[in-house]
Amino acid sequence: MSVMVNNVGGDNAEWQHALSALLPELSVYAYPEIPDKSQIKYAAVWHHPHNDLLQYPNLKAVLVLGAGTDHIDQAPTLPDVPIVRLIDPAVGTDMSQYVLYWTMHFQRGYEVYRKQQLEKVWQRYEYPLAKTFTVTVLGAGLIGSFIAQQIALCGFNAQIWSRSPREDVSDDITFYHGEQGLQRALSHTNVLVNCLPLKSQTERLIDVEVFQQLPIGSYFINVSRGAVVNEEDLIEALNTKHLRAAAIDAATIEPLSEAHPFWTTPKLFVTPHMSGATYTRTAARVLADNIKRMERGDDPFPIYTPSQRGA
Amino acid sequence: MSVMVNNVGGDNAEWQHALSALLPELSVYAYPEIPDKSQIKYAAVWHHPHNDLLQYPNLKAVLVLGAGTDHIDQAPTLPDVPIVRLIDPAVGTDMSQYVLYWTMHFQRGYEVYRKQQLEKVWQRYEYPLAKTFTVTVLGAGLIGSFIAQQIALCGFNAQIWSRSPREDVSDDITFYHGEQGLQRALSHTNVLVNCLPLKSQTERLIDVEVFQQLPIGSYFINVSRGAVVNEEDLIEALNTKHLRAAAIDAATIEPLSEAHPFWTTPKLFVTPHMSGATYTRTAARVLADNIKRMERGDDPFPIYTPSQRGA
Repeated sequence: MSVMVNNVGGDNAEWQHALSALLPELSVYAYPEIPDKSQIKYAAVWHHPHNDLLQYPNLKAVLVLGAGTDHIDQAPTLPDVPIVRLIDPAVGTDMSQYVLYWTMHFQRGYEVYRKQQLEKVWQRYEYPLAKTFTVTVLGAGLIGSFIAQQIALCGFNAQIWSRSPREDVSDDITFYHGEQGLQRALSHTNVLVNCLPLKSQTERLIDVEVFQQLPIGSYFINVSRGAVVNEEDLIEALNTKHLRAAAIDAATIEPLSEAHPFWTTPKLFVTPHMSGATYTRTAARVLADNIKRMERGDDPFPIYTPSQRGA
Repeated sequence: MSVMVNNVGGDNAEWQHALSALLPELSVYAYPEIPDKSQIKYAAVWHHPHNDLLQYPNLKAVLVLGAGTDHIDQAPTLPDVPIVRLIDPAVGTDMSQYVLYWTMHFQRGYEVYRKQQLEKVWQRYEYPLAKTFTVTVLGAGLIGSFIAQQIALCGFNAQIWSRSPREDVSDDITFYHGEQGLQRALSHTNVLVNCLPLKSQTERLIDVEVFQQLPIGSYFINVSRGAVVNEEDLIEALNTKHLRAAAIDAATIEPLSEAHPFWTTPKLFVTPHMSGATYTRTAARVLADNIKRMERGDDPFPIYTPSQRGA
């Protein structure tokens, strides 16, 4: 039995090489060079061609090559096998450090000091203490929870919001849920962090109404999907200075076109979806461990239920 | 009995106001308006005029208005009373977050993404994992140890070096000491962090020899005193690209003169000694607590032994 890798937009050979080394008892093939589709037991994919996954009669599991699942949710058809997300602890660490970096950038006023260096000005400013600087993470999934946890650990006042109530939020994070909870959480937020997955209910959810509920002079960080944000409203919130600055790691259409206003919006810092990129150096081991678990008859982790199945 | 405040270069009235509120049973006077020098029991000072501290016959303690003690070491005379440093946990948090900020800035290549935004380039790069990115803190005092601890907590490979052996370094930090230890620590350092106090033995200690023992492409952060570094050698190490970048929060003469080359050295980021500034909002409580401790007959913390006494 064997493994098929199809990392659309990425490097198939690198994954094939890494998985072969970690799974010496299985054959690993890079799409589209699959000698016998009936031999494929595991499909490791990212943005696979629609309906391709129905071509493997003996498929036992689909393993997503990243934490995001919007391309799985958007697939018109899916085989009736477990879908396994790739939650690489290294990616969680990297994403939480991205949020931490920009939170500190905003809290300590590093942008001011850059400007002062150009003007040869030696002057320091008081800044809000970390423990009074409130960071609100939207989305209480695995990654959102991990980010809020790390932010709290570094001494900031961490809040987390999710649509529905949850029981599993740790004591050092203030939890809010639902429409009213969102309003309450936003009202005293310094940094709003988007960690919501892209679904029909979250598309363009972060819009002018959300920004206006934030205090004047607050900040926004997007480490999730661009389409969760109304991009025009974000630019407007920066232009009117309701938002003081934003760090944007995701756009509705990536890569950003040259004409996209994000590049040139003042106080908007663009990064090329690097906050939590999946690198084979760490992710291949997580994925191989899940395959080994299934080969032993154990459940992989975490299993994902796509929207259209839940619907 | 009363308290005298003399915060040279800072705001006396603010300290007087804060301490009066926290110590309602004592009178607090701002230098030089001291009605009766024999009433002064506690002197809270920063860069006090030489010999002034001998003018108070009933002085019980000198409380330094910051973590640094070089001005105490440089005082030609000191009264024979305990000298108490001000170790404000908020300052430790701020300093460790300064080091963390620049460590992440260097590790993740944020400077590259700033440049790419100007050129409208959407491209990401692989970076060293936090756990393989080695941060070496020079100085195992209270602050150096706290910084190394926080860096380790955030997933980086933390090392600490001090001149003499120590027993109290925590397990998740690699400890080095002495000349040979320094050589070994530097040889695989990605980010060198100066937390050494300024003393005659540390003056201009970080020079071309230290920089050359670092791997090519490493980084330097100074959160201590400028005079611990040979500034010409630092600029040379950046110009030859042996050092890839540096974040410099301290200079031999502060404020930096307009003519100082630090302002314009490429890849040198200057900040105006803001990594761990003492703010009365948190520091006044720490200082007042030490006075209350002494009023109860308990020892203040931490007591400092100036160099000339040890000599």
